[in-house]
Amino acid sequence: MSSPILLTPGPLTTTARTKQAMLADWGSWDAAFNEMTASVCKDIVDIVKGQGSHVCVPLQGSGTFSVEAALGTLVPKTGKVLVPANGAYCQRIARILGYLQREVVVLEHGEDEPVKPERIAAALQADPSLTHVAVVHCETSAGILNPLHQIAQVVAQHNRRLLVDAMSSFAAIPIDLSTTPIDALIAASGKCLEGVPGMGFVVVRQELIEGAAGNAHSLALDLHDQWVYMQKTGQWRYTPPTHVVAALRAALDQYIEEGGISARSARYQQNSTTLVKGMRALGLRTYLVDEVQAPIIVTFHSPDHPQFDFKKLYEGVKAQGFILYPGKLTQIETFRVGCIGAIDSEEILKAVAATEKTLRDLGVLV
Amino acid sequence: MSSPILLTPGPLTTTARTKQAMLADWGSWDAAFNEMTASVCKDIVDIVKGQGSHVCVPLQGSGTFSVEAALGTLVPKTGKVLVPANGAYCQRIARILGYLQREVVVLEHGEDEPVKPERIAAALQADPSLTHVAVVHCETSAGILNPLHQIAQVVAQHNRRLLVDAMSSFAAIPIDLSTTPIDALIAASGKCLEGVPGMGFVVVRQELIEGAAGNAHSLALDLHDQWVYMQKTGQWRYTPPTHVVAALRAALDQYIEEGGISARSARYQQNSTTLVKGMRALGLRTYLVDEVQAPIIVTFHSPDHPQFDFKKLYEGVKAQGFILYPGKLTQIETFRVGCIGAIDSEEILKAVAATEKTLRDLGVLV
Repeated sequence: MSSPILLTPGPLTTTARTKQAMLADWGSWDAAFNEMTASVCKDIVDIVKGQGSHVCVPLQGSGTFSVEAALGTLVPKTGKVLVPANGAYCQRIARILGYLQREVVVLEHGEDEPVKPERIAAALQADPSLTHVAVVHCETSAGILNPLHQIAQVVAQHNRRLLVDAMSSFAAIPIDLSTTPIDALIAASGKCLEGVPGMGFVVVRQELIEGAAGNAHSLALDLHDQWVYMQKTGQWRYTPPTHVVAALRAALDQYIEEGGISARSARYQQNSTTLVKGMRALGLRTYLVDEVQAPIIVTFHSPDHPQFDFKKLYEGVKAQGFILYPGKLTQIETFRVGCIGAIDSEEILKAVAATEKTLRDLGVLV
Repeated sequence: MSSPILLTPGPLTTTARTKQAMLADWGSWDAAFNEMTASVCKDIVDIVKGQGSHVCVPLQGSGTFSVEAALGTLVPKTGKVLVPANGAYCQRIARILGYLQREVVVLEHGEDEPVKPERIAAALQADPSLTHVAVVHCETSAGILNPLHQIAQVVAQHNRRLLVDAMSSFAAIPIDLSTTPIDALIAASGKCLEGVPGMGFVVVRQELIEGAAGNAHSLALDLHDQWVYMQKTGQWRYTPPTHVVAALRAALDQYIEEGGISARSARYQQNSTTLVKGMRALGLRTYLVDEVQAPIIVTFHSPDHPQFDFKKLYEGVKAQGFILYPGKLTQIETFRVGCIGAIDSEEILKAVAATEKTLRDLGVLV
């Protein structure tokens, strides 16, 4: 089957080899499957240099399930969380905390502005009752990169706990837990690891998950219970997405063969640079300035032209084999193009050409 | 790849065609994927004749995630739930309700005894504050079939709501929502529909899900929010397990082609009859009497022989291509053999032969 190339923030285009890893059935109780789970968890911890300090707890469901599980399990019922916000995924963290009846303080930033560490410092200074900070590393609403290392330094200096939604940055942008103090890092199978969607995971400081019994609001999302059971049995608590785990194992093998974080981040950076250059040559403008743009997904202003219609652009580009993504900003008309997945700049150049052709067909470009 | 045959309660053996449906990548925002989701939901409702009264809400994660989502979303915070219990999955419902801080009354039954409708009637009569009954249709701990139609009649006569965990019975044992009053029926992709694991679903009375805003304890597991969003956009709220959905679509096509519920239930019944007959011929005894045995998974007493060791049986049978399942009963030594998945009595006969060979090798049979 020939799928279109997905230029989206996930699900992504995966390799044939990754998908072919799903052509077997696995018994979830069997030792061979347990070994696969253990090896996946080990590699995930290694990618962010968490060996010896952190453990990986996988969880069924989308990445959001793991974000909620981390918040519900790691923030005690009496906790109070600071959420620096510059997009929809930060707002989702605040919404989850509302469901969990945890106190939350949202520190609003503009959607085109990286989170400011000095504002976090001031907020923590001003309110001693704040116990945790929860932040999004790469906010894909606009595609902005937040300064994780500086944020982590500030949070550690103020002796608070830091939870990071690294959904779209994990395995794409270097994170080093041995030098950047982070308590829990959350991501998922179907993003820059280039697996298929269906499971998330939390890389969490071992002493923190060990002390987290009794916090969770949910059995299914009780990360402590999942971890304790897995330690004891080697198995997932409830039916694992066996084929998704097998695909992730294959994707991790390819990640390592490609050359790890340096090779993957270089490829995505090249994709992003190629995309921005090509689209600018068509007269399209990026929403963010280059300095704060993550090499994950790029937001473009919709052309200010009466013939422009995103749906028509989407359909025209799709007919040529590429899937674009709608914008997520509240105030202005934009659309987004992803740079991640099992693609390189050759596909990006073709996607730019497909965009050009469609814009000409629509009469937006002449 | 040649996988062993899984004689387990799920994940199951799936067909090559079902697995090959995962060889494409799908954009989760794309119309083609949304149509696939809608067609899967429609077919699921049709299987249990819920057209016009019930809707299907799919959810990421294992079946347990959907059980918790249904309980959390459909039982108001002031609700009180009666849980007739004859196994581990009934106990899990009670445990979830504990997390949710919903009042719960467990009506204990023996593990070899079907739930008694008259005991439910008496309990509902005695306690007017009970608002819901939550029951497991086929309790795979022992493999017992609970009398769902009679239970539903009793609950309806007493004007209470009924939630049913039909995880291992859905698409295997006929359920007719047009004649059996059930408010919500919960199952998953990787059981008797013969898809791969990674998503669950709740077939719920439309008016009930419409009135369920604000109940849920969790954003990720808020079935009302998932349903409302899907109604509005045709999309899943958070990243769907796209490949799992595609596999389920292929599995549903094969379910319909096979001849629907009558053909599938006949095949599983044949598997179960063949298994029990073959194992009895080896001198193995079933834990349940035939009258209450569901054709899903069969519990056998471990042979009372000093040379018997389940681990050795498991490894010996696995070396011949079949995966057995451990017992789950608290008091006695048992093991289990599943009858479900993309297998027929030919595989079952081979599995019995593999069991015989291993028992002879172990010196348990002479």
